[in-house]
Amino acid sequence: MTTIRAVEVHDVRFPTAAAGDGSDAINRGDYSATYVELLIDGPLVGAGFTFTNGRGNEITCAAVRALAPQVVGRSLEEIAAEPVAFWRSLTADPQLRWLGPEKGVIHMATGAVVNAVWDLRAKAAGLPLWQLLAELSTEELVANVDFHHITDALTPDAAAAILDKGRHGYAERLAQVRSEGFPSYTTSVGWLGYPDDKVRDLTRAAYAEGWRAMKMKVGGDLEDDVRRARIIRAEIGPDALLMMDANQVWDVDQAIAAMERLVEVDPYWIEEPTHADDVLGHARIQRAVAPVRVATGEVAANRVIFKQLLQADAIGVMQIDACRVGGVNEVLAELLLAAKFGVPVCPHAGGVGLCELVQHLAFFDYLRVGTSLDGRMVEYVDHLHEHFVDPVRTRGGRYLLPTEPGYSATMKASSVAEFSFPEGPVWR
Amino acid sequence: MTTIRAVEVHDVRFPTAAAGDGSDAINRGDYSATYVELLIDGPLVGAGFTFTNGRGNEITCAAVRALAPQVVGRSLEEIAAEPVAFWRSLTADPQLRWLGPEKGVIHMATGAVVNAVWDLRAKAAGLPLWQLLAELSTEELVANVDFHHITDALTPDAAAAILDKGRHGYAERLAQVRSEGFPSYTTSVGWLGYPDDKVRDLTRAAYAEGWRAMKMKVGGDLEDDVRRARIIRAEIGPDALLMMDANQVWDVDQAIAAMERLVEVDPYWIEEPTHADDVLGHARIQRAVAPVRVATGEVAANRVIFKQLLQADAIGVMQIDACRVGGVNEVLAELLLAAKFGVPVCPHAGGVGLCELVQHLAFFDYLRVGTSLDGRMVEYVDHLHEHFVDPVRTRGGRYLLPTEPGYSATMKASSVAEFSFPEGPVWR
Repeated sequence: MTTIRAVEVHDVRFPTAAAGDGSDAINRGDYSATYVELLIDGPLVGAGFTFTNGRGNEITCAAVRALAPQVVGRSLEEIAAEPVAFWRSLTADPQLRWLGPEKGVIHMATGAVVNAVWDLRAKAAGLPLWQLLAELSTEELVANVDFHHITDALTPDAAAAILDKGRHGYAERLAQVRSEGFPSYTTSVGWLGYPDDKVRDLTRAAYAEGWRAMKMKVGGDLEDDVRRARIIRAEIGPDALLMMDANQVWDVDQAIAAMERLVEVDPYWIEEPTHADDVLGHARIQRAVAPVRVATGEVAANRVIFKQLLQADAIGVMQIDACRVGGVNEVLAELLLAAKFGVPVCPHAGGVGLCELVQHLAFFDYLRVGTSLDGRMVEYVDHLHEHFVDPVRTRGGRYLLPTEPGYSATMKASSVAEFSFPEGPVWR
Repeated sequence: MTTIRAVEVHDVRFPTAAAGDGSDAINRGDYSATYVELLIDGPLVGAGFTFTNGRGNEITCAAVRALAPQVVGRSLEEIAAEPVAFWRSLTADPQLRWLGPEKGVIHMATGAVVNAVWDLRAKAAGLPLWQLLAELSTEELVANVDFHHITDALTPDAAAAILDKGRHGYAERLAQVRSEGFPSYTTSVGWLGYPDDKVRDLTRAAYAEGWRAMKMKVGGDLEDDVRRARIIRAEIGPDALLMMDANQVWDVDQAIAAMERLVEVDPYWIEEPTHADDVLGHARIQRAVAPVRVATGEVAANRVIFKQLLQADAIGVMQIDACRVGGVNEVLAELLLAAKFGVPVCPHAGGVGLCELVQHLAFFDYLRVGTSLDGRMVEYVDHLHEHFVDPVRTRGGRYLLPTEPGYSATMKASSVAEFSFPEGPVWR
């Protein structure tokens, strides 16, 4: 039995705000993580985290501490045998649930803990997480999904059918991604905090490196957005993809009006055009801007929001996040929902370590759930990978298949020590 | 100038779980509050809180501490002059927003702080909060609402029209509620933790006290729900109202099926039939169970969720909560949205001090916004009022108009000391 003996929490913050990296219409932060370590008897450590934006990271740390008693003393074997019971001990605790339910701080903390459990499971199995998941039987995968509140869109039987179908052609798809990797796009060229010259230079460099899909931030002054979009389009030519991200800054009608202007540069998608909770608003915008796709999900609180976005035909691209929701188990539900509705998944990445996590989810999705690369891309941001023991590897704008056991979530001990808040040397 | 010098936070918890009070399909907690005091130069203290359910209250306390720097050093006059700028300093902070946005722990903490500011404003004006609000000009009230992300349903002009209309007949309505109070209903009869005999005895006693509207919890075993519902209906006769509350436990199709059974006891509304985030699910349930009304709102995260519930015709009763959302300013938006869509507001109460808060909102709604008592009732639960300096007063199943300055949010210092967690005598 592999029993979890202790849960350790670290408040890790990187001073990114000063550089304008990661600046968009509503966020300007010091990228940070509520970093969780699960200790067992033995050398393996389960690592997980939720990404936050600087101040307030101590709140998600407090939430992890509140959840820890549900984890300490449990064994991996017990969790694997009754995964939904374990998941609900975190998400449906009769006292803590009131703080969400299944949203915000308490749910992000749940994600950090659940991800650490999966990292430990994968390390104990000696497999990268994508492979652990992809080699589970259909029954085991279905048993890891909490279908509560989504059965009107996806039943366990429907999920099983998707996963069974995903076994066909598995070996071919695996051989393909092993040699070619997974498509990605870059968000490093067009943060709102960057001046025009920097946008132009970064775009030119990214194109030269092989990127053919790039995302810019919009939602500041509309004329500024148009000017910057033209700069990027001029650099990348008519065939490369240009995505736009408004980070929820617009009202519904404002989003529709802004896109009437921005359509001149042929955007591929408009991401987070309005408030993340506004399912009906996204649906109206999607009807208005088609064939431009509406994309959202990095701030979608849980599977119930994703279910509705799909039911309402509100999105053409579904962006899962690895640690905004309740970890791997809830992401499984989301991938299955996307497959059921035929919407491609393009995971959200960037931040701290999000690229490291979502690559596993994207490879698993391709291997067993979505089974197509059509319209699939993983976001890539070239930030902070140096702090991870098993960082992402890319080649020519594609993610390479992870090979190390685990969920690639482990931070270097030296980075945790240096950037711990407030006691680390960087912050003292 | 009335400058806020300090923000004090108290983790106050009452050991209610053992008695089964407050038990429902998903919550069994020690009723608790993140209690906030705003200190100024002078004897007045602004009091506010958000209600929580025991464990985890330390997390909302941590969130209040994270918000405190946005409040300390501000003056009431400055906040009153630019109320939305102040509100956004809490809800749209470029680092803290990521933790919501506008939902869960960080938004509940915002509610506690914003409510404390309004308590202080009302005390400084020497008026009960309902009166401070009701006597504000239309322009001032509109200036207190953040219309961001709701303009597709409610513009400032439309809000002003509602509030201007609300001036007609104001004196008559005020005279009426001053003599007659505000209708309410009781939830004290049918908690899931109570045995049948206790339900029968409590129902009989409540009917004898004058209550003609009672709410029971459902969502346990369906046969148990039916049996308990029959007991209550037999006691109260065919004319009194029987409301049901499932506390989100059902899936959408399960809710529809359960209501096909429960309709035999003629329920007036079904509250929280499914997940609080499921706007489309509520809409489907409302279509299926009509003319039974769907009611929800105590866990609705923010005005964007309420906007959608109204746009989708998903509810027949809108239940605002005083401190789940971002305090009085956001409740103003919700009351105006309800009036725009013609849906009656029946505030959620109970918990710790929620009755004390929402009575002010209900009276204000009647006086200036909704302007009708048709279908309006405030929830009443006879718990924990003894810990408040200005507790609710009721007569014959009606709330009486508060007369003391402030938002009735001030707890007795002795109660705060006794029930502070973990150092208070009750918890040591």
